[in-house]
Amino acid sequence: MKHLLAIEKLSRDEIEAILDRAESFAEVGRRDIKKVPTLRGRTVVTLFYESSTRTSSSFELAAKRLSADLVSVKAAGSSVDKGESLKDTVATLSAYDPAAIVIRHPYAGAAQMVAGWTEAAVVNAGDGKHEHPSQALLDVYTLRRRLGSLDGRRIWIVGDVLHSRVARSNLIAFQRMGAEVTVCGPPTLIPRGIEELGCEVSHSLEAIGEADVVYALRMQQERMSESFVPSLREYAATFQIDTRRLNPRQLLMHPGPVNRGVELSGEAIDSPQSLIVEQVAAGLVVRMAILYELLAGGERPAPVPDEESSPTPIGQPA
Amino acid sequence: MKHLLAIEKLSRDEIEAILDRAESFAEVGRRDIKKVPTLRGRTVVTLFYESSTRTSSSFELAAKRLSADLVSVKAAGSSVDKGESLKDTVATLSAYDPAAIVIRHPYAGAAQMVAGWTEAAVVNAGDGKHEHPSQALLDVYTLRRRLGSLDGRRIWIVGDVLHSRVARSNLIAFQRMGAEVTVCGPPTLIPRGIEELGCEVSHSLEAIGEADVVYALRMQQERMSESFVPSLREYAATFQIDTRRLNPRQLLMHPGPVNRGVELSGEAIDSPQSLIVEQVAAGLVVRMAILYELLAGGERPAPVPDEESSPTPIGQPA
Amino acid sequence: MKHLLAIEKLSRDEIEAILDRAESFAEVGRRDIKKVPTLRGRTVVTLFYESSTRTSSSFELAAKRLSADLVSVKAAGSSVDKGESLKDTVATLSAYDPAAIVIRHPYAGAAQMVAGWTEAAVVNAGDGKHEHPSQALLDVYTLRRRLGSLDGRRIWIVGDVLHSRVARSNLIAFQRMGAEVTVCGPPTLIPRGIEELGCEVSHSLEAIGEADVVYALRMQQERMSESFVPSLREYAATFQIDTRRLNPRQLLMHPGPVNRGVELSGEAIDSPQSLIVEQVAAGLVVRMAILYELLAGGERPAPVPDEESSPTPIGQPA
Repeated sequence: MKHLLAIEKLSRDEIEAILDRAESFAEVGRRDIKKVPTLRGRTVVTLFYESSTRTSSSFELAAKRLSADLVSVKAAGSSVDKGESLKDTVATLSAYDPAAIVIRHPYAGAAQMVAGWTEAAVVNAGDGKHEHPSQALLDVYTLRRRLGSLDGRRIWIVGDVLHSRVARSNLIAFQRMGAEVTVCGPPTLIPRGIEELGCEVSHSLEAIGEADVVYALRMQQERMSESFVPSLREYAATFQIDTRRLNPRQLLMHPGPVNRGVELSGEAIDSPQSLIVEQVAAGLVVRMAILYELLAGGERPAPVPDEESSPTPIGQPA
Repeated sequence: MKHLLAIEKLSRDEIEAILDRAESFAEVGRRDIKKVPTLRGRTVVTLFYESSTRTSSSFELAAKRLSADLVSVKAAGSSVDKGESLKDTVATLSAYDPAAIVIRHPYAGAAQMVAGWTEAAVVNAGDGKHEHPSQALLDVYTLRRRLGSLDGRRIWIVGDVLHSRVARSNLIAFQRMGAEVTVCGPPTLIPRGIEELGCEVSHSLEAIGEADVVYALRMQQERMSESFVPSLREYAATFQIDTRRLNPRQLLMHPGPVNRGVELSGEAIDSPQSLIVEQVAAGLVVRMAILYELLAGGERPAPVPDEESSPTPIGQPA
Repeated sequence: MKHLLAIEKLSRDEIEAILDRAESFAEVGRRDIKKVPTLRGRTVVTLFYESSTRTSSSFELAAKRLSADLVSVKAAGSSVDKGESLKDTVATLSAYDPAAIVIRHPYAGAAQMVAGWTEAAVVNAGDGKHEHPSQALLDVYTLRRRLGSLDGRRIWIVGDVLHSRVARSNLIAFQRMGAEVTVCGPPTLIPRGIEELGCEVSHSLEAIGEADVVYALRMQQERMSESFVPSLREYAATFQIDTRRLNPRQLLMHPGPVNRGVELSGEAIDSPQSLIVEQVAAGLVVRMAILYELLAGGERPAPVPDEESSPTPIGQPA
């Protein structure tokens, strides 16, 4: 594996290799010195064209815990803005001979393009409405720890599926790990033809009781002015996940940051069945694992016994 | 000591323990390698909802000199802005299992609330008009180095006492260390009933000759438009500390950044009796000491002989 | 050498000492662990009053690869903005006892002033229209690697010479290393009397075929509104360097970031004769060398055999 551009390109075995690696970093995280020397003297660049404290700080801390040197470029407000093309920016940063470039960009396909312009390993930290593979991996990791396996589990993804790269990456990843996925939201926020990806579609929460896991998406304020939904209040009335709609054996997830009182009620967020904080913790160790697999994977003696070379059915991707 | 939330909660002995620890870090600062491995592999988060280069860089460098990994979140312009509550942001950052969270926030009591939401040690780096305890500690440290002891010293705090968390924390700290404090400023900028904290009040600089130390506060531009004072010029005419009003044996302090020509004259700032630069230097070692006491304090063999277990009278706090 | 303020003050020998040192860091950059412990436990401050991702990230990574602790202050949007004078900001940062302060400032002479206010070594990372010495050093380094020597080479500097500190520093540096320099651009963008610096002046690209090296300058958008040129399109028609105007044995340079399609055509940027990416790579090792020479230069056993103590003629500076 040279780059991490899309979940779509990963086999179940490749996903599980990353998750197993992440388990070993979770063990490091329980030590007093939460740090390994793996990437000492190597450089990791983070290049964010959209602000995201959560994702960037997670990647940055992951790089630091691997002892890498970090170059963190926030493109908004930087000279990157002064009309320089993405290609030239990448050429510039590549001149530092980084081991990896972690890129967040508003255009779908940006990470793929970057991979064509640099010797560095490229990690897609979100490209437009396309993919956000590290999010999907951390979500699968979180669920695997709770459930043991995703095989046969039912997962509902609720909210603005249309604009969400998280929905897209997670739909693929959950299915590849053996889960059955339903996407749910108002018709204006569900992309036409999404059934072709092998999922069910629902336009109400009526049957949500069947879900083992409810994965709520962030409702962006700007969708209101674009009239995808009549109002946030209206949206919340019909699609908010609260403790009445959720039953106590269902698990609740959200990629964050949460709009309290919109897609989730405060009570639901704070309930014991919410995995939101575990997702963030998973993000750190999964991103350490991603950097490790890309940058040091070849050198590794498998530190974790390989998952039994199981003939489990590969989830059917799109 | 689990958190540092307010000077109000520290005994004189606790204050002195931090100052003694800071002395030992001042010694480290005179070495060529100004760094100790104490917090290697541990994470310190700085979370600033108000910009403050001075305080944030001081805490960040303190963390680095203790070899911690740093996650620095500037809330303005970050996803923290996207409607996420403070509670959820703290839950997110806590998922990284940081050893400490250093928080600056515009609401009084924010640090205290954060302490209820995280396992990390919380350091209040300024919460609204409430407290700024690390500032008070570095000021006491600076004076103790110059004067040996604060017992019986007279300290005037001059300026916008009403809006100043520095005034509040320092008033408490100076008194607790045995000093006598007078607050001075126009009636509009002195809180009613402040005498109950045990200080004197003056509305003119007439008697400032009695002070051993003059502590000038920053005059915020925005107070003008709110008509607390007629104009900066008017304020300066009456309350500016200059070299005519200051006599050569008085010490001058200011928390920075200074408005040259408003609360202080340029000459006064640059005079040998000004301790302003020493305060900044003190800030670094005192913040190293705070992090050390909170995060590694239990492990310590006392590196500095304890101050004689002196029966000196504890300053009378509010 | 205590500070690096201006190329004007460096002798050819001093320039070559820095370039030789940079060669040794280029060797470090080819290792797996691209890091040396030279500045461990010492502090480097970067203080940027103008944004420049390229220059700041280059200096910051250089400091990290030397194992320094970094304090990075971006003055825009920081408390530095709150009316604090440069002098007071420098006094504040100097209180951390940094080994070096790297400053970018819009006023010519700012770095020189800073050097008078601090014990730290000061590196001028660009001061108004005055100088940008590290840029000149990295450009000379890049050319020396390609050409062996600059003696007798013809270098054309094309574009907005009037507003460019890069033009000024490079003109001096190229000449001092033995090259012959022509500056080229519309009369509105060439400073009167520049011939006195010993260069030729041209107002068209007609004779550019004589150049061994074409060094294009960045065309700032804001010059348009100030009517130095009729329009960017007009400028590009007359002065853009493209592959028709460039012949294949000429080398092309640019300080970046490039405006594709304005001062350079896309084809020219991407051609094999373009050294733009090499310049960025050179920037890192040259800045490591600058910090090394200023901060650890005294300790050094010459790691590279000294260039033959050659009696080569010193280029005639202004």
